Amino acid sequence: MPTTLGFNQYGKAENRVVRITRDGGTHHIKDLNVSVSLSGDMADVHYSGSNAHVLPTDTMKNTVYVFAKEHGIASAEEFGIRLARHFVTGRDAIHRARVRIEEYAWERIAAAGEGEHSFVRRGQETRVAQITFDGADGAWEVISGLTDLTVLNSTGSEFRGFARDAYTTLAETRDRILATDVSARWRHRWTGGDVPPETVGRTVGGRAAGAGGGGGAGSPAGEGEAMPDWNESYEQTKSHLLRAFAETYSLSLQQTLYRMGARVIDHRAEIDEIRFALPNKHHFLVDLGPFGLKNDNEVYVAADRPYGLIEATVLRDGAEQRIPPDLTAV
Amino acid sequence: MPTTLGFNQYGKAENRVVRITRDGGTHHIKDLNVSVSLSGDMADVHYSGSNAHVLPTDTMKNTVYVFAKEHGIASAEEFGIRLARHFVTGRDAIHRARVRIEEYAWERIAAAGEGEHSFVRRGQETRVAQITFDGADGAWEVISGLTDLTVLNSTGSEFRGFARDAYTTLAETRDRILATDVSARWRHRWTGGDVPPETVGRTVGGRAAGAGGGGGAGSPAGEGEAMPDWNESYEQTKSHLLRAFAETYSLSLQQTLYRMGARVIDHRAEIDEIRFALPNKHHFLVDLGPFGLKNDNEVYVAADRPYGLIEATVLRDGAEQRIPPDLTAV
Amino acid sequence: MPTTLGFNQYGKAENRVVRITRDGGTHHIKDLNVSVSLSGDMADVHYSGSNAHVLPTDTMKNTVYVFAKEHGIASAEEFGIRLARHFVTGRDAIHRARVRIEEYAWERIAAAGEGEHSFVRRGQETRVAQITFDGADGAWEVISGLTDLTVLNSTGSEFRGFARDAYTTLAETRDRILATDVSARWRHRWTGGDVPPETVGRTVGGRAAGAGGGGGAGSPAGEGEAMPDWNESYEQTKSHLLRAFAETYSLSLQQTLYRMGARVIDHRAEIDEIRFALPNKHHFLVDLGPFGLKNDNEVYVAADRPYGLIEATVLRDGAEQRIPPDLTAV
Amino acid sequence: MPTTLGFNQYGKAENRVVRITRDGGTHHIKDLNVSVSLSGDMADVHYSGSNAHVLPTDTMKNTVYVFAKEHGIASAEEFGIRLARHFVTGRDAIHRARVRIEEYAWERIAAAGEGEHSFVRRGQETRVAQITFDGADGAWEVISGLTDLTVLNSTGSEFRGFARDAYTTLAETRDRILATDVSARWRHRWTGGDVPPETVGRTVGGRAAGAGGGGGAGSPAGEGEAMPDWNESYEQTKSHLLRAFAETYSLSLQQTLYRMGARVIDHRAEIDEIRFALPNKHHFLVDLGPFGLKNDNEVYVAADRPYGLIEATVLRDGAEQRIPPDLTAV
Repeated sequence: MPTTLGFNQYGKAENRVVRITRDGGTHHIKDLNVSVSLSGDMADVHYSGSNAHVLPTDTMKNTVYVFAKEHGIASAEEFGIRLARHFVTGRDAIHRARVRIEEYAWERIAAAGEGEHSFVRRGQETRVAQITFDGADGAWEVISGLTDLTVLNSTGSEFRGFARDAYTTLAETRDRILATDVSARWRHRWTGGDVPPETVGRTVGGRAAGAGGGGGAGSPAGEGEAMPDWNESYEQTKSHLLRAFAETYSLSLQQTLYRMGARVIDHRAEIDEIRFALPNKHHFLVDLGPFGLKNDNEVYVAADRPYGLIEATVLRDGAEQRIPPDLTAV
Repeated sequence: MPTTLGFNQYGKAENRVVRITRDGGTHHIKDLNVSVSLSGDMADVHYSGSNAHVLPTDTMKNTVYVFAKEHGIASAEEFGIRLARHFVTGRDAIHRARVRIEEYAWERIAAAGEGEHSFVRRGQETRVAQITFDGADGAWEVISGLTDLTVLNSTGSEFRGFARDAYTTLAETRDRILATDVSARWRHRWTGGDVPPETVGRTVGGRAAGAGGGGGAGSPAGEGEAMPDWNESYEQTKSHLLRAFAETYSLSLQQTLYRMGARVIDHRAEIDEIRFALPNKHHFLVDLGPFGLKNDNEVYVAADRPYGLIEATVLRDGAEQRIPPDLTAV
Repeated sequence: MPTTLGFNQYGKAENRVVRITRDGGTHHIKDLNVSVSLSGDMADVHYSGSNAHVLPTDTMKNTVYVFAKEHGIASAEEFGIRLARHFVTGRDAIHRARVRIEEYAWERIAAAGEGEHSFVRRGQETRVAQITFDGADGAWEVISGLTDLTVLNSTGSEFRGFARDAYTTLAETRDRILATDVSARWRHRWTGGDVPPETVGRTVGGRAAGAGGGGGAGSPAGEGEAMPDWNESYEQTKSHLLRAFAETYSLSLQQTLYRMGARVIDHRAEIDEIRFALPNKHHFLVDLGPFGLKNDNEVYVAADRPYGLIEATVLRDGAEQRIPPDLTAV
Repeated sequence: MPTTLGFNQYGKAENRVVRITRDGGTHHIKDLNVSVSLSGDMADVHYSGSNAHVLPTDTMKNTVYVFAKEHGIASAEEFGIRLARHFVTGRDAIHRARVRIEEYAWERIAAAGEGEHSFVRRGQETRVAQITFDGADGAWEVISGLTDLTVLNSTGSEFRGFARDAYTTLAETRDRILATDVSARWRHRWTGGDVPPETVGRTVGGRAAGAGGGGGAGSPAGEGEAMPDWNESYEQTKSHLLRAFAETYSLSLQQTLYRMGARVIDHRAEIDEIRFALPNKHHFLVDLGPFGLKNDNEVYVAADRPYGLIEATVLRDGAEQRIPPDLTAV
């Protein structure tokens, strides 16, 4: 045969699971979109169609729902870790699992009496997580992130002193709108270490009944160090991204990006690497001259396409660069 | 010619305009998507291609931007009223204008120092408005609304006692998740009346310098009664929709819909009619029996298609039904 | 109670059904998205939550699948007629049914041997149909149509001699690209008449075993005249739309629209009314002057927003205008 | 500073360009969406906001349009090669260019007389290309591909003999629908070689006036071998994908995927590697048992989510694996 199989994986994508937990009359909700991909000893199914090593993707779906029941969903990351470990440790033919999760946030509706079980979808960014595991001690990779967090500075942004060539017509500006849909992925330092998997905390009612001390909810294991509190880490990181965007006087979107990344690395010890893809959502000042009017940075057209696209990774000094350029959500 | 021209309109759709106003160092932002449609004496252009009566859609786009500069954007409704009146009163060939607006909400980023001009898109529902005017006194029609407000009750919803036929297999339930994406349109009682259009307040810096007393921002005119404060009306109506959804023990989504509508009519004197399209976003209880587990309303699959779709109008007694069934946003 | 229920309907939307029929080793495929909406004696469920008259939307879903099995799918229209008649004639509480259908076209893959059951989705326009029935003799309304048929003339289009006001800056042009995504809905003359419903032809294997002579597949009934051959009607109408777009030297998109409509009415006796919504997909000539180049109608930017939007109905002389302005697909 | 800049690139995304060429009265059309990303000596702009090395993304947009005028668009690949070479060879600070292109296909409308400049968008798959160049001899990487080619076999597909665990409930099947949206990327063997860039053919009217003999349109250069005829290569590869899908009796989607890849490698000498992401678009047989009916593979529900997702690379023996798992279109 003149052809060979290269890297492959298979799984069930976009399993939508909603988990309700009750605390007396007060309900809690977690709303996830879970995608599982497995790889391993899969040459036969590609070459000959033998499914002997192929756990059906339908089974992966079932597992997502069973795990949501049995372990609750303390966080997207914790839930993904449980799933990944299950698939890799449970079957010889599976050597690696990658779990991607989107999480949709809900807030409570302020209402009389009935409000403890009523929610409105928050609708802002989508939280994402990717958990990868190949079964080796200390080989966990947890990447968290967010997409579609749309931010805008209505001043405090310049773009000047740029390079020019024969095709450059752009004018310099000392005051423009800077707007972007933040898409960010950050990699946690935690890699699991040599703590036996069975020490992972069992959860009751969606919350961790921890395995003793340890870092955060459900702490499976730590490479000398504790597993992060994933939810706290997420909220703090999002807050730092917003503040860095707002507090940076911008000379370019690249500079703003770097400040956003550096602030996260500086303030969040659990994060070693962060990657951004930031579309420059152009807001063009409308030329009102033909109508005898001056547009003093008041009226803008929000353009769709084309858009600038600024991508970069910011690393803690000495950290390895591992987040690939095109990491996607699902 | 064996064919005749029927109802027609033309315009420029989806003009994206962002208006910044300054209050010292504090900036305000309005972010709209404006669609203008005009109709009138347009037989010639259809029959022969004569454009003598056709104001270019490009001109409508320009007008949106000029008006954003000159009058600011106090509210989507007020802005739409100005545009509609301009087109209808300014040209003999234009007999009717319909302006549709989507508005995207932004909130301030909490940040040190620089926060007065930094925003994050709220991302929840989209506010919409439709203004129709044919030039006659008291002939204004203002419909406000919202789309994609996603809400969920995790209990307090039954579905029982329904009709059955040979194709019915659905089991009754006394406890289910009830979730929907609220799409609502409400028609205001205000129709403008005989107040001369020129009394419409001019705005400075995006806020109204009112024509004396009167109802709300920029009050153009009122049929004996004041023009509503459109922003206040919107916020209150949204709040009532959320509370009615949360506070209703639901026997059917139809009943919940009616309660939502009735609450708005009861509490908001300026609104005479409200129409809903509520998809029943099914959350199916996962059967965990094959795995020896009981699913005590804990784990659900959020389904995409098909979905129930419940549509109805709720009217103030004596009010005329005018919102068409398929009213869309753009 | 100070509020009243207005027009309401409910149903199951977006039932995705794929029907395979076999002709020996050769397979045929029909791929539909079916949305059912029923209205009738539904005050109680809105006012009090009593579901006694509410046939579950889940039952409507089941009915779609059972009918696909029992009757096959000769055409979207014929299938919708069966469904609408079933719901209206089968239950006292249901007074009116509206069925909307999207159909996705497939073509065969040219392949050796196995090709008789292999298909590739055509991917061009989506065919749509809306069937409305209230149980009365001769009260059928069948609207067929299509969406997203994207067409472009690279010359043969002017735009000159238009009206101007203070906000007009557009230059005239004698040669531009004219492009649009055709969305059209056409209403058939056929309304059913007094022929008893049971004469509707049964189908075998998805094709009609007609009730004798008559117009087309499955002819349920005709008001003196035969039911159209829906598939032939659709293909011919689409062809006329394309040819009229291509063969019209355009002075305005309104004129092109009218020619498209008139051609359909002229050539298709079964159609009395056609309504269009045609976005003017602007292709702007790029100004290459700054680079010392002349752009002789060679290089265009395809813009997204804003876009012109031209809407009009073309009627057979004497026909009633019944297609509403905002008719949507689902 | 405790942080470091990692891999970064920036550019202008989604430049929509339509290029018309004339052959007497017959027009030709190319319709592209072009995204340019550059990387190089960009530390300063991230660290300090100095834009001295930053060619504005607006300039990249201008360059796309100028090149469309000057060189025409013989193929997406050829156009991307020109752009990439221009950016890398033209500026010291730019070390690498990556150009991604989507192409939308149009076919002629069959019409009387005017048809030579009238087109209807084909609407099937989207053709894509990615060209990467870092300035070194023989360092070109050209990846072609397609997305959203939806195919379906209505029989000739089994899924049996799979692995089982405690969460497996899936039944085996000997006859199912197999459907997928093909997303494929294939890497060409051609890497440019040491032929001087200036031998790249100039094009006239969108077609190459070749630099002598050589492989295909506009042949820039070849590593001993000719540049492929990109358009011919694309059409043939698409055809092989379709035929392999149709002609494979499928025991699993993995097997079908491999056959599709192997057929391309076997028949297209210019291609060394191909990667697929194939969603298993589940079509579930509807259980009609409750209605006393047997569903003999006739009626299916086309499900949306979740879906299986099968991904794999097929390599020519000895070829290096270079297409990353998450390669996206834009």
